[in-house]
Amino acid sequence: MSELIATYLLPNEKNPEKKAEEIALGLTVGSWTNLPELEQSQLRKHKGRVVSIEGLPSINEHHSLIRIAYPTINFSNDLPAILTTVFGKLSLDGKIKLVDLQFNDVLKSLFPGPRFGIEGLRKKLNVYERPLLMSIFKGVLGKDLNFLSEQLKQQALGGVDLVKDDEILFENNLTPFEKRIAVGKAVLQKVWEHTGHRTLYAVNLTGRTSQLRDKAKRASELGADLLLFNVFSYGLDVLQELREDSEIALPIMAHPAVSGASTSSPEFGFSHSLLLGKLLRYAGADLSLFPSPYGTVALDKPLALSIAAELMKDDVFKKAFPVPSAGIHPGLVPLLIRDFGDDAVINAGGGVHGHPKGAHGGGLAFRQAIETTLQGIPLVEGAELFPELKQALELWGSAEVIH
Amino acid sequence: MSELIATYLLPNEKNPEKKAEEIALGLTVGSWTNLPELEQSQLRKHKGRVVSIEGLPSINEHHSLIRIAYPTINFSNDLPAILTTVFGKLSLDGKIKLVDLQFNDVLKSLFPGPRFGIEGLRKKLNVYERPLLMSIFKGVLGKDLNFLSEQLKQQALGGVDLVKDDEILFENNLTPFEKRIAVGKAVLQKVWEHTGHRTLYAVNLTGRTSQLRDKAKRASELGADLLLFNVFSYGLDVLQELREDSEIALPIMAHPAVSGASTSSPEFGFSHSLLLGKLLRYAGADLSLFPSPYGTVALDKPLALSIAAELMKDDVFKKAFPVPSAGIHPGLVPLLIRDFGDDAVINAGGGVHGHPKGAHGGGLAFRQAIETTLQGIPLVEGAELFPELKQALELWGSAEVIH
Repeated sequence: MSELIATYLLPNEKNPEKKAEEIALGLTVGSWTNLPELEQSQLRKHKGRVVSIEGLPSINEHHSLIRIAYPTINFSNDLPAILTTVFGKLSLDGKIKLVDLQFNDVLKSLFPGPRFGIEGLRKKLNVYERPLLMSIFKGVLGKDLNFLSEQLKQQALGGVDLVKDDEILFENNLTPFEKRIAVGKAVLQKVWEHTGHRTLYAVNLTGRTSQLRDKAKRASELGADLLLFNVFSYGLDVLQELREDSEIALPIMAHPAVSGASTSSPEFGFSHSLLLGKLLRYAGADLSLFPSPYGTVALDKPLALSIAAELMKDDVFKKAFPVPSAGIHPGLVPLLIRDFGDDAVINAGGGVHGHPKGAHGGGLAFRQAIETTLQGIPLVEGAELFPELKQALELWGSAEVIH
Repeated sequence: MSELIATYLLPNEKNPEKKAEEIALGLTVGSWTNLPELEQSQLRKHKGRVVSIEGLPSINEHHSLIRIAYPTINFSNDLPAILTTVFGKLSLDGKIKLVDLQFNDVLKSLFPGPRFGIEGLRKKLNVYERPLLMSIFKGVLGKDLNFLSEQLKQQALGGVDLVKDDEILFENNLTPFEKRIAVGKAVLQKVWEHTGHRTLYAVNLTGRTSQLRDKAKRASELGADLLLFNVFSYGLDVLQELREDSEIALPIMAHPAVSGASTSSPEFGFSHSLLLGKLLRYAGADLSLFPSPYGTVALDKPLALSIAAELMKDDVFKKAFPVPSAGIHPGLVPLLIRDFGDDAVINAGGGVHGHPKGAHGGGLAFRQAIETTLQGIPLVEGAELFPELKQALELWGSAEVIH
């Protein structure tokens, strides 16, 4: 029988065995032991099943992990149906956190995964064997296309691989979506012609849900590089439909905006690895942004690493880029590479724009920090070769990795 | 200047003044005091503003409510843009809960509110001056149309006003969406012809996001009564687009499935009143289901009441029906009417189907409990007149209101 297995954390349940049985029946056939034998045999293929119950007494006396198998015949093959089945009314039922979902191979085959993934993005950029570098537009509200194009140029000149829109930049008269794409493309083309360095621009796809696909197709026609998408203010299935549309066929960068509402509590909602890792990847995100463990908006390091692990683990889907974000400056590059490896995106806003030589200098400093680190040289030594890196370290300090 | 005011709870913030300023700037123009005067004057209309900071020392030394005003010029007039602006990356930034959003009149005018609301639904049913009664299909997985139609008939014969699909019933071969509508309609028509009682059926609208509108239009063509919709496994804007489509024009019953992931924590996510009350109403839900304060899946009474208050308060929008659900039996009717008044839907699953005389008897017992209570008579006295009510009280007991 084809099953989907959900793992739940019960932070405070004195009788996890009973609770697990209640879930397995209550979210499938409703009742069981009182049913006549004929009905039992008819319904057996719909009945949920308790797979395991594991106490975690080291954390808390009443802390346990339970695993429930749901027959896949019970739901249609879409994330709204799956989430409603495994965490619909259950999400309202006291302290419980959905930690993981295990899709079997048949179910997986019905989800797209990233269209490009890490390999596809590297191919577009022709950049291999180092982390990518991304920077973010800053202070864009109320600014015009000249401002944006100058900011984009400075970032590109610094050698960043990707530049993303601010996620709070919506459709507006000063910098409308289609014009941003056209102007951005022209600027980046010029930088490429002058320097040989290619930077890609992720434009923020916003607006009413039913208009997103047409807008994304238009972006594709206009030659956009990537889409930035606030998936959690829409829905995972909306992301998936953007991914599946072959007339769009652009890499999608998933922004975690609003996701904290359903991941932050240790006792409720979804685990970070499931929502920002596995489900984003299955639904088709090529990159997933999440708070880094180092900055001001910090996520506990094991949680941040758990997201990256889900995006990168061997699976039938392409791998998606982890993008640990917020509070990143060049001095953190050795830590980032130690923790997230080469197949990650180093993403900075203030750490690029706040450089004494502006975004141009900031980008250079990051690229210098990456190069230095990959050569196994401490940043302080690299700073002797690279003036921009030296300035960055003087400003923000350095968190060298102690071996 | 047109503003949207967001109220946040900071459960553990030693410096709420500083935090409030950081939010007001960080989620709008980014920085302020260092900007040249010319830029300040250009950006003033985009700058967020701290409206108030209120300590709540009676709850906790570091507990406070802060209110931030966001210029509406900063976002497009859709809920994804609004939520990304006011609770995008902020939702990821430590302990913070979005408690309320105050839309001004212009912004409100851009949202639809319920198409039918309480008055429209009462008109469809021709039922006034009493709470409506709803029951839920039970144990439907693996069952065929004969089973559903017999169950629907029994529920309708009991005098319920509304019957809703189980929210975990998705598209399936045994009871496909369109057939459920057709068969349900035929059954309810017969009951109406025989008894003069009209029951409406809320069919579960499920599937891929982009197909929902066509499916809902088809439902409308087939004469469906209402749509049940798991809005939180899709997105609030998807609900709004269903509401706005005049070719659909069916009442929408919002199910709270998955919403617990982002409301349950007292320190993170959305308040219940905002998500299940105000935003559902603004987006166009005619009914909002939520856990009652009495049953097994219980919500604290002040929280349940806060949802109902948002659905019912005087506003430019039509009022939406509160549907406190889960664990309801006829003995709770006096409590429900005391707490939620006449303009609510009394909703039961087990409390209808588990009656000794089945769903037919269960419906009757509820209607008898409602009639008895509205006449100011204690249920135990009503039970002397009504045998089904008597049986219900013997089985489930009664929670009389102490005056």
